[in-house]
Parts: sequence; C-alpha cells; structure tokens
Amino acid sequence: MSEWDLVVRGGRVVTASDDYVADVAIEGGRIAAVGLGLSGARRIEADGLLVLPGGVDTHCHIEQLQPGGLADEESFESGSASALAGGTTSVITFSTQFKGEAIGPSLAEYHRRAARAMVDYSFHQIITDATDRVVFEEIPAIVASGIRSLKVFLTYDPLFLDDRQYLRVLAAARRAGALVTVHCENYEAIRWRTAALLADGRAAPKYHAWSRPSVVEREATHRAIALAELVDQPIQVFHVSGPEAAEEIARARRRGVKVWGETCPQYLVLTAADMERPGFEGANYMCSPAPRDQITIDGLWDEIRRGVLDVVSSDHSGWSYEGARGKRSAGVDASFRDIPNGVPGCRGWRRGCRSCSARGWAKVGSACSNSCS
Amino acid sequence: MSEWDLVVRGGRVVTASDDYVADVAIEGGRIAAVGLGLSGARRIEADGLLVLPGGVDTHCHIEQLQPGGLADEESFESGSASALAGGTTSVITFSTQFKGEAIGPSLAEYHRRAARAMVDYSFHQIITDATDRVVFEEIPAIVASGIRSLKVFLTYDPLFLDDRQYLRVLAAARRAGALVTVHCENYEAIRWRTAALLADGRAAPKYHAWSRPSVVEREATHRAIALAELVDQPIQVFHVSGPEAAEEIARARRRGVKVWGETCPQYLVLTAADMERPGFEGANYMCSPAPRDQITIDGLWDEIRRGVLDVVSSDHSGWSYEGARGKRSAGVDASFRDIPNGVPGCRGWRRGCRSCSARGWAKVGSACSNSCS
Amino acid sequence: MSEWDLVVRGGRVVTASDDYVADVAIEGGRIAAVGLGLSGARRIEADGLLVLPGGVDTHCHIEQLQPGGLADEESFESGSASALAGGTTSVITFSTQFKGEAIGPSLAEYHRRAARAMVDYSFHQIITDATDRVVFEEIPAIVASGIRSLKVFLTYDPLFLDDRQYLRVLAAARRAGALVTVHCENYEAIRWRTAALLADGRAAPKYHAWSRPSVVEREATHRAIALAELVDQPIQVFHVSGPEAAEEIARARRRGVKVWGETCPQYLVLTAADMERPGFEGANYMCSPAPRDQITIDGLWDEIRRGVLDVVSSDHSGWSYEGARGKRSAGVDASFRDIPNGVPGCRGWRRGCRSCSARGWAKVGSACSNSCS
Amino acid sequence: MSEWDLVVRGGRVVTASDDYVADVAIEGGRIAAVGLGLSGARRIEADGLLVLPGGVDTHCHIEQLQPGGLADEESFESGSASALAGGTTSVITFSTQFKGEAIGPSLAEYHRRAARAMVDYSFHQIITDATDRVVFEEIPAIVASGIRSLKVFLTYDPLFLDDRQYLRVLAAARRAGALVTVHCENYEAIRWRTAALLADGRAAPKYHAWSRPSVVEREATHRAIALAELVDQPIQVFHVSGPEAAEEIARARRRGVKVWGETCPQYLVLTAADMERPGFEGANYMCSPAPRDQITIDGLWDEIRRGVLDVVSSDHSGWSYEGARGKRSAGVDASFRDIPNGVPGCRGWRRGCRSCSARGWAKVGSACSNSCS
Repeated sequence: MSEWDLVVRGGRVVTASDDYVADVAIEGGRIAAVGLGLSGARRIEADGLLVLPGGVDTHCHIEQLQPGGLADEESFESGSASALAGGTTSVITFSTQFKGEAIGPSLAEYHRRAARAMVDYSFHQIITDATDRVVFEEIPAIVASGIRSLKVFLTYDPLFLDDRQYLRVLAAARRAGALVTVHCENYEAIRWRTAALLADGRAAPKYHAWSRPSVVEREATHRAIALAELVDQPIQVFHVSGPEAAEEIARARRRGVKVWGETCPQYLVLTAADMERPGFEGANYMCSPAPRDQITIDGLWDEIRRGVLDVVSSDHSGWSYEGARGKRSAGVDASFRDIPNGVPGCRGWRRGCRSCSARGWAKVGSACSNSCS
Repeated sequence: MSEWDLVVRGGRVVTASDDYVADVAIEGGRIAAVGLGLSGARRIEADGLLVLPGGVDTHCHIEQLQPGGLADEESFESGSASALAGGTTSVITFSTQFKGEAIGPSLAEYHRRAARAMVDYSFHQIITDATDRVVFEEIPAIVASGIRSLKVFLTYDPLFLDDRQYLRVLAAARRAGALVTVHCENYEAIRWRTAALLADGRAAPKYHAWSRPSVVEREATHRAIALAELVDQPIQVFHVSGPEAAEEIARARRRGVKVWGETCPQYLVLTAADMERPGFEGANYMCSPAPRDQITIDGLWDEIRRGVLDVVSSDHSGWSYEGARGKRSAGVDASFRDIPNGVPGCRGWRRGCRSCSARGWAKVGSACSNSCS
Repeated sequence: MSEWDLVVRGGRVVTASDDYVADVAIEGGRIAAVGLGLSGARRIEADGLLVLPGGVDTHCHIEQLQPGGLADEESFESGSASALAGGTTSVITFSTQFKGEAIGPSLAEYHRRAARAMVDYSFHQIITDATDRVVFEEIPAIVASGIRSLKVFLTYDPLFLDDRQYLRVLAAARRAGALVTVHCENYEAIRWRTAALLADGRAAPKYHAWSRPSVVEREATHRAIALAELVDQPIQVFHVSGPEAAEEIARARRRGVKVWGETCPQYLVLTAADMERPGFEGANYMCSPAPRDQITIDGLWDEIRRGVLDVVSSDHSGWSYEGARGKRSAGVDASFRDIPNGVPGCRGWRRGCRSCSARGWAKVGSACSNSCS
Repeated sequence: MSEWDLVVRGGRVVTASDDYVADVAIEGGRIAAVGLGLSGARRIEADGLLVLPGGVDTHCHIEQLQPGGLADEESFESGSASALAGGTTSVITFSTQFKGEAIGPSLAEYHRRAARAMVDYSFHQIITDATDRVVFEEIPAIVASGIRSLKVFLTYDPLFLDDRQYLRVLAAARRAGALVTVHCENYEAIRWRTAALLADGRAAPKYHAWSRPSVVEREATHRAIALAELVDQPIQVFHVSGPEAAEEIARARRRGVKVWGETCPQYLVLTAADMERPGFEGANYMCSPAPRDQITIDGLWDEIRRGVLDVVSSDHSGWSYEGARGKRSAGVDASFRDIPNGVPGCRGWRRGCRSCSARGWAKVGSACSNSCS
C-alpha cells in the first residue's frame, strides 16, 4: 500500500463513542483511515495528545448586520480564527432580516462576508417581519437554498416577534421543512421591570439580572412550545439558563412534542454575582437570559445528564471592553439597557483567568483573545 | 321561651360539613336557631325535604353593558329570578369598563340596575384599558368602595388585554389589595386559527371548538400565572375546562404561588360533539373555552376531587335562541365568530331535557326557563 | 316553648365548617338546639370562650395487654381522664391478638377494661397471627361485632407480620368489609442497622433515629400499598413521618388506589435532635417512626395542606419517665432497643414547657399530666 | 505499507455513533485499521452489507447447574453457536451457588464448562445463601478473581433471598466493589396468587401471567432500590417488563441513587395473549416477569428512548418444546408452576415466523434454531 499524505501518529483518538490510541491518516484533505502502524509522506507525532474531530458550534454571533451597518464587533476573520484556535471547525452564525425589507439581499451579503471565514459555516435566518411575501415566498426559497433553520426572538427590540408573527413563522417553517430556533423571554415583562428599575435609579450592570428573572424565561419557553404544538412544528429552545425552563421542554417531550433544548457554558459557570463585579467590569458578564445562581447551575448540569438539553453551544457574542462599539462604548454610567449583550465563547474561556481578566473578558477574537499567553 | 317568627320544621338540613334532621327558626328575617322541637308563629313543614343554605354563584353575566347599549340579553329581574328559583341567593356579576372611558360612571349605572335584582349581588370589575388614571386612581377607589375583584380577558375583542396591560392591572390590584380573575386563552392563536377555518369555509358552530383547542387555554393559563408570580399578586383562573390547564394551577401551587381555579357545569357535562347538533342547535352549546371530550370531563372531576379547582360557578350567560339579540340573531348561516358565546346556568339545567330542548336551551330566565314544566 | 335542661350561652361555636357566636342547648344529654336567645334550667356562661364538638382521637395506646400482663403503663382511667381534659371525647384504642391464641378472649378482656373509660371508645384489632381460624372465622365475627379496623405491624417484635400474613389479613378484611391500618417500616432493615449500631457501641437514645431512617418507612409504605392494590383492599397508613412516605400515598391515589394517611403531632414538632438531649432525657422523645428534621416537618405540613394526609391523631403512648415500666425502667445505660417506644398525646402537650419537662415528658395521664399548672 | 492479514472491503460500518462505508483491516486476529483503500492478503467483499462490532449479551442462561445436575437444557456449545450465528461475540452467563454450599467449587466447574464456548464469556455469580463465610470470605475472593457482578433473586424457589439476606449481599458487594443485579418480583405475593389460582383449577400456561401482575414487579423493584439506597450500593434491575417498574428506577435516579435498568426483547414484542395460544404452545412464551400488553410495550419503548433503561439483553433461556427437560417435560397437563420458565434470545427470533413456530419456539440452539431455513 502506498503511503498517505499525512499521518497523525500515536494520539489518543476520542470520538462521540470511543477512546483509543491510533494513527489517523489524511489523504486529499480528508481522513482516509484510522488504525495502527499507518505511514504517511508527512507525520505529526501526537504521543500523549488528544486527537479529536473538529468541533461544531451551532450558535455564534459573528459580523451580524443591522440596517445602519455592523451589529457585532466580531468579524468573520477574528471570530473564525478564534474558533479554530479552540478546535471548532464549523460554526452556525446568523443572517438578519432587516424589518420591512426582503431577506434575499442581506443573506447574499452574509454569504459574501462569511467567505472570509477560516472554518465551515452556515446560517440561522433571523425573521423580524413575517409579511406574506416573507412567509410564502422568501422562506421557501432560502430553505431550498440550504438554510434549514429560522431564528425568532420573543423579546429584544427591534428583533421581537409577537405571537401572531411567531405563529406565521412556525407555519412557514412547517410548509418548508425548516427548524425554528427561539429566544425565549417575555418581552413586556422585561420592559415593565426595566422601566421600574430605571425609574428607581437602578441602572448598573447587575440590574440586568433583576430585569429578567427566570420566570420570564419559563413563561416564554412554555408559550413558544405551546404555539409550536398548535402548529405541529419542531422547535429548538436556545440558551436555556436553568432547570425551570428545561422542565418545560422535558414536559413537552413527554407529551410527544418535538422540542429540543440548548444551553451554553456561561449558564454553567457564571452567576448573577459576576455582574456585580466592581467598577464597570460586571458589564463583561451581561448576556440574555442572565446568569442565575449556583443552585440553578447544579440543576442545569442535571438537565444535561438527563438528556433534556441536547446541545451545548457558545452563543458567542464577542464584544471588546474598550472598543468603539464595545461594552463601555455608551460610557461607564450607561444603564444596563444600553450595554451590548453577550459573552465570548467560540474559543472557550476560563473563569477567573487573571490574564484574560486584566485585558477584559470580552477581547476574544483579538490577537490575545483568552489565549492566556 | 317565646315563639319565633317562622319555623321550617323537620327538614334534612345539609350544610358544608353536616347533614341532619332539624327545625330551622327564623327571626327578623335571619336564622335564629337550629334544633329540635322549635316552634314558631308560622310553620313550613319540610318533612322529607332538603333544607340548604342559599347558594352563591360567583360568576354570572347579567345585563352586561357595552358602549352602544346592552351586551347581555339577560336582565337583573329575569336573571335573579332564575337564580332564586334554583336556590341561589347571591350572585357576582360583571361591571365593564368601556375602553377609553373612566370606570366610575358605568359602575354607578350597574349599581342602579342591579338594585332591581331579587338576590344579593356584587361585581367583578372588568378592566379593558389600564391607563395611568385607571391603575393609579380608579382601581384604588373602586376597591375601597367594596369591589374586591378585577377581571381581565387575555382574549376576546374588544375586552382583550395584552401582557403589558395585564401586568399593570396585576400591580394595581396588589397595591389596592384586590383579587384578579382571568379569562385564559391565547388571543393571537385563536385569531390565527379562526382566520384559517373561515378561509376554508368552516364556519358552522362546531368549528368554534376547532378554533380554540386546549393548548391555547393551557398556554394562557401558564402565562397568566407566570406574570402573577412576577408581580406576586394572587389570581383566580376562571372556567378551567380540563386537566391540562388545571395542571398549570396545581404546579404553581406547589411552587407556593397563590392561584385558584374555577370550573363550571358545562365543562363537566358537555362535549364538543354538542356543538355538532343538527340544524343550528349546536349554537346553544357554544361557550369559551369550548367544551372538550369525555376523557377531559373525567379528568376535570379528578381535579375537583384533588382540590385543584376550588370553585364551581355557572359562568351564566343566558342567550335566547330566537330573540333579537339571541343565538340566531345573526342568521343561521352566521359564522361561529358572530354567534353570542355562553350558556345559561344560574338555575342549573338538565342535559337532554326534552322540554328545555324543545324550546331552546338558551331560554333560561324567561318564564319557562328550564323549569321543565 | 319550655326551657332546655342546660344552655351554654354566648360562646364562639366552631365546627368543621363554621365559626359563629351562639347558645347551645342540651336536653337529655344531647345537643338539642343551636341558636340565639335560648334559655335553660341551667346555664353556663361562655362569653369569650370557644365551644367545640368533642374531639375524636383515632389512634391511642391505652392499657394494651401482652401475654404476660400489661404492655402499656397508661390505664383506661388515667388515659381517658387525660383525653377528656384536652377536649377529646372519643378514642380508638387497640386490642392485641396474642400470637398463637384466639382473638375472642383478649378482645372481651379489652371491652371489660375499657368500660372504665370516661370517654367513648372503640378498638383497632391488632392481628399478629393470621391462621386459617383467624382469617376465616374470627375476623368476620369481630367485624360483625362492630370492630371495623384491623391493625397490622410490618415491623416490631413480636407484632411483626411478613408479606404472606399481611396478604391474608388484607384478603380477610376485604371479605369482611373492614379497614386495614398499617405500621409501615421495614423489619429486616431496622434489625440489620440496629445490630450494626449496637456492635459499634452506639446504644444511646439518639441512635434510635439512626436505626430507622426515612427510607425504611418509604419502602414499607410502598409495599403495604402495593400488596393492598393486589388484593384491592383499602388501607390507612399510620403515623406518616414525612413527605417521602406521603408521596407514596399521593401517587397511589392518583392510580385510583384507596389509601389514606395519618400523621401525628410529634412529627410536626419534634426532630431527631430531641433524642440527643442530655442525660437520658432523649428517651422521652423516642417513637417509631422516629422524628426527622425541620425540612421534613415543613414538607409534612404541605402534605396536610394538599390533603394527602387526612387524619391527625395522637398515637398516644403514655410512658412515665421513672415508673416501674417507664422510659428508664431498663436503666439509663439501656440500649435504644430496650426503651419503651412512644410519646404522650391524648391531651396535647407543649414543646419546651418547663413544667412538663421538669417532671418528665412522659407523665401524661398522671394527676399533673402536662397541665403545666 | 505491507498488506494486512485480512480486509473486509466496502461494507457499511456501523458503530455506536457512526455509520459510513469503509474497509476494515484485521491483523493478528484484531482490527488494525478502518479506512478507505486498505488492502490485505485475504479479502472479504462486503459491498451492500453491514459490518458491525460483535454483540455483547449481558444476560444469558446457559448450562446452568443445580445440585442434582443441569438446570438448563442449553449447553455452552449450542448456546454460544447460536449467539455467534446472530453476531453476538460475548455473553455473560450465570454461576449458581448451591444453597448451603461454598461458591468456589461450582464456579470452578462453570469455568471448566464455559471453556467450550465459541464466544467470550463472564459470569454473574448467583448468591443463594448469604452466610458469614460467603459474605466475608467468598464474595471478596470471587470479585478479586474478576467476577464483578452478584445476582440475587427476590423470588423463585430455591433461589429466593429474603430482605435480610439481600441486605447482606448488598453490603458485601459494597465492601468488594461489585455490582448487584436483581430479579425483582414479590415472592409471597406470587405464591399467594398461585395457590389461589391452582385451588381454583386455573393451571394452564396463561395463568402464569395472572400469578404475577405488574404490581408485584413494581413492589420488588421499589424495595430492591430502597434497600440499596440504605446500603449505598449500586444495583442493576434485570428484565424490567414495563413502565411501572421503570418509573421506580427513574425516580430513584432523580434522587441520585445509582440504579440501572435492563429490559429484553420478549417484553417489547410478546404480550400475555401469547401464553393463551392453543394447545400447550403458550408454554413456549412463559417467562418471568410475564409479558404484559400492548400499552405496556409502547410505554417500555418510551423508557428506552428516555434513557431510563440502559441495556437490552436477551435473558436467553433456551428450552426445547419436546426435549427430556423441555417445556412439555412435565406433561401437557402440568400446571404453569411446573413448566420451565424462559424464552430463547441469544440469536434473536422472529415473532410469528411460521417455520419457527412449526418446530416449536423453544428450539433455539438446535441445528435449526430459529434460522427459519
């Protein structure tokens, strides 16, 4: 037998079900064989190292656009470099419909930009305006073109969909054969509490958690599922922050509903207390839903073990601390409502790492990222 | 000992906890003694009869107003006569706020009209417009005046409140110390399904049930409870139609939430099949939520036995079959959307009673009512 | 109208469902009327006092016999006086079958002794030997004579019944139409742990709790119910000590099984820590099942509120502290296995009462009892 | 690269997590590489065929001994040939302790006999007599020798262990670091019902199911788990026949108990109706626990999907229909109590296969087995 192009030798190969020492042979850029004693034109010695399949991060915000320009600070170059550095070789990012506009042109722009990525990619298509043209013409077309997931937000201006628009997206997805992924928090409840907090002078980052307690997530999760039951359309609930919302998913499954749940590392390591860090540093830990507490974290691990939550993604949203559009861009007196939401995650990050924290948690994707060098 | 004004002699006295044979003595219009061998100026012989306390029906629609005039066909005379005939001596009816108007004047008008009733009465105050003036001035005032319950509708034009308005009513009730009672069905889901059914030519009374399946009730029940949890305000869920919604109440109680549930006889004896009766007769059985099926009925009895549902009221809504504003008033080709909703109940009714059914179920309150003479 | 024999005037009458001020008239030793302005030959002024129906204590150990003589220190005189002092006018005590003997003679002896009681009484008949003669002849006869409840112990030498004997009692009760009441703890598990504790020198009263944790109660509760399901015979589970066992009852009811649960004040106020009191005092708090902890107490209250537990009895078992057969009778070095089990309760008792505690908790039934004079 | 000994070419390789077309290379009797374009001294063309890892059957009764001789008809030759024919390359069979005897000699005899097997093997060691010598000396020794699982029967003469003996085995396993596997049915309940059935002349095979309804399995499952909780020892519940017993496992896991559940194909395809087949054929379908009904089967699949049941084994117990020790050996008038229990499964079998059924279901392991030729 002739030699392969490249052999990674003697590593500990870990797959979804197995764990053994073997050589991995690559030919024409693809894995051609796994076994013992393989030889290749090129060799990488992997004794004592782990050899893993490339990771797939199913939920990353990268170079997201809004009508006036970029929504995200992270670019496809920096974001995908960061992903790759952490072993992630595929990402699913987001294409946003601009309210009142057609999907086609902005999706085309996303494809153009994503071509710069160093990893494989696809998109969740965010629907913000479920007009007749969108549900009857555009959604079938983009699903046919290979975008198999529609994303809706039950909160967040200006992305928010009301129940009527959400039902129309569910029905369109059902006709087209797409999955619907959902951000579940109650829009009006968050607005009501936010107004009360700000009226009371409670604007610091930590009040972000006060403005959106677990119950607003549980409410929207149950509603998202109930309306999906009505339409008989499968959904995935994004970034489940604790067992309260997860229980709604588990109950629905027991009724036979096709619903899946995702969580993210921030909900497994952060708590609301992180948003109380001194100075403005708490802003770096703001994401939605908000991190909860240690009991919730323990319960969330149980939900993963029980199989209620199928996917752990990053919900990567990489904001710098000091950049022009970063966490501090609205000033250190900004109310929590005006601070960009989201934490980095493509590459992973370490809680309490002094190096990262000295430079600002949010610097993932920059040269230093949390490489902790 | 001198004699009492009146003695009801030898009846079987049944109270909330006891059941025994005794005389009941009345003095000055009130029960003065219960015992054996009582004597009175007047006597009613009750041998072999039941002697019961007067019933309290906590949920009756009587002479309800709308901006242009009467909303209900039933008047305080006819409705209260019917109630009295069935042993009900107190009713709680509804006072409606007209959208865009103050509560005071219409509540005063209700008080004027209700003075004609032959039974004791109070009101649930329906809130349709939670303006600042309403939540900060009017609600405290009417609660202080003795109206202790606010009613909100999460569906039904033009009574519908969205989540924001519902939150404001909850908060106002909390400040004033009132109960909030809630009609729980999802507004947009019903509108979406109704539009689809009518577009498909499905307009007959039986499609009323198709337009609002259990899941839209469960959704709104969970949401009503979740937002009440957020505000920490007790609520009562009206006319729970089956165990699916009741389970949301039971779960909330286990979390320590103050929520109570009511059901009504129609959900214990009718099924959706009653709306399929030949001709237009099915219209007589239309109410919201819609009657379900026999399995749901069996489950609902269990919820009563388990104590999840505390109250059985009538949700009396007495429409004639042939009257000018009755069930057939929009014509026998009317779509289910245009037929008045509700079934009679103040006096009780018997399913399958030939006399009632010959005259039309809805005639409660008229001379014949379902007296089945 | 002529006057009544006796009138209790102006008290606050509290019944199972009502609470009002009234006079209560007695004629020939029975209540003849409740009302206002009643007059009698004799009067008791009850202004500002509560007037209550006599209590029924469904679970009291009084003057219980064993082959060689008395099992209980408490006599029918002292026990019933104590009950009466606390407002309890009926007690259900126990008649024990002596292993290997017929039921008849010992039951007759109980009737003779109970005639000395100052309150109404009945018996639970304890079955310790389910021979053919017992199940086919004696049980039908004693049930026909008015004893409607059979009691079995799934633990405790020498009362213990194994599964086979328990099944035979269930089947006999079903044929005769009696209730079966059950002490639920796992016999072998307690013996196994007790042996291990004593081998390890752990003999003090507090190790009583270590010898029988909740799980041995939950196990036997589930088993008692499962075998009753098999036979289709209603049972009542005695002295449920916490939500763990109560949950088995709740689950069974949801399956439609006829099972009821009782608890007792000791499980609502004592914890295992009470058995750790200094000196030998902990012995006064020993009963089976053993008191648990505060979380269990909180959960137990919930089970009462939820209606899972229907009955609160005393499980009165009145031992003196220093008497010849009392708590200390085996010496202060006695192992927990040799200390009489049970706490007083007929009359109620107050935790932490200094007077009671100075004289020994167990003195209920003596002249002082816990009258706390 | 030199050629491999053998290459299986072009098959569809299916592993626990993957499914792809590849060649499999074998060197020195072991898989050496999986990949594309592998070449070998010998080739097997597998185009269009499945290439699977060898199966592991964790629960097979083969050549089981009893004091007087063989308990099982199946020999290691026939049983392992049958297993191999179905793709099973490892089996875990049983070594029985003879009551009143040491384990060592019989285990040695099993090792001698199992050496004839054509597949890999290990043993579950059945404990029938938990003497001090067994729990303190023999169990540690056999676990040290590599037998990591102890099997106990909570029913079945003469294998039955009572709660005390079961506790001793649990404690011994905990000290030695072994798993305990358990047959869960209530011994006395089955004996009680069997006696009643036989007294009533109900002896045909179908009454096997009547003698052991689900509740006796649920009871013993809960008890097995509760006692394991007490000892803090992991167990595996064998052959769970439906969701009722599985629910006990799921509940225990939620409490954090280390308990696993296994089921078998017979519980997924047979129902009690199979034991009612005409003639004596029903005997072929007798196993313990008994097959249930279609609703139970549907629920059992759910438990597998939910992950409550981790393992599907065969519980292979291969009895001929007509052989000297087979299903009919006690005569066609034999009561269900005297018919050998168990169904074949090592090789798989097809329900309703006419060929198998013509020859008798039980013939697995014979030349024909259920090869359905």
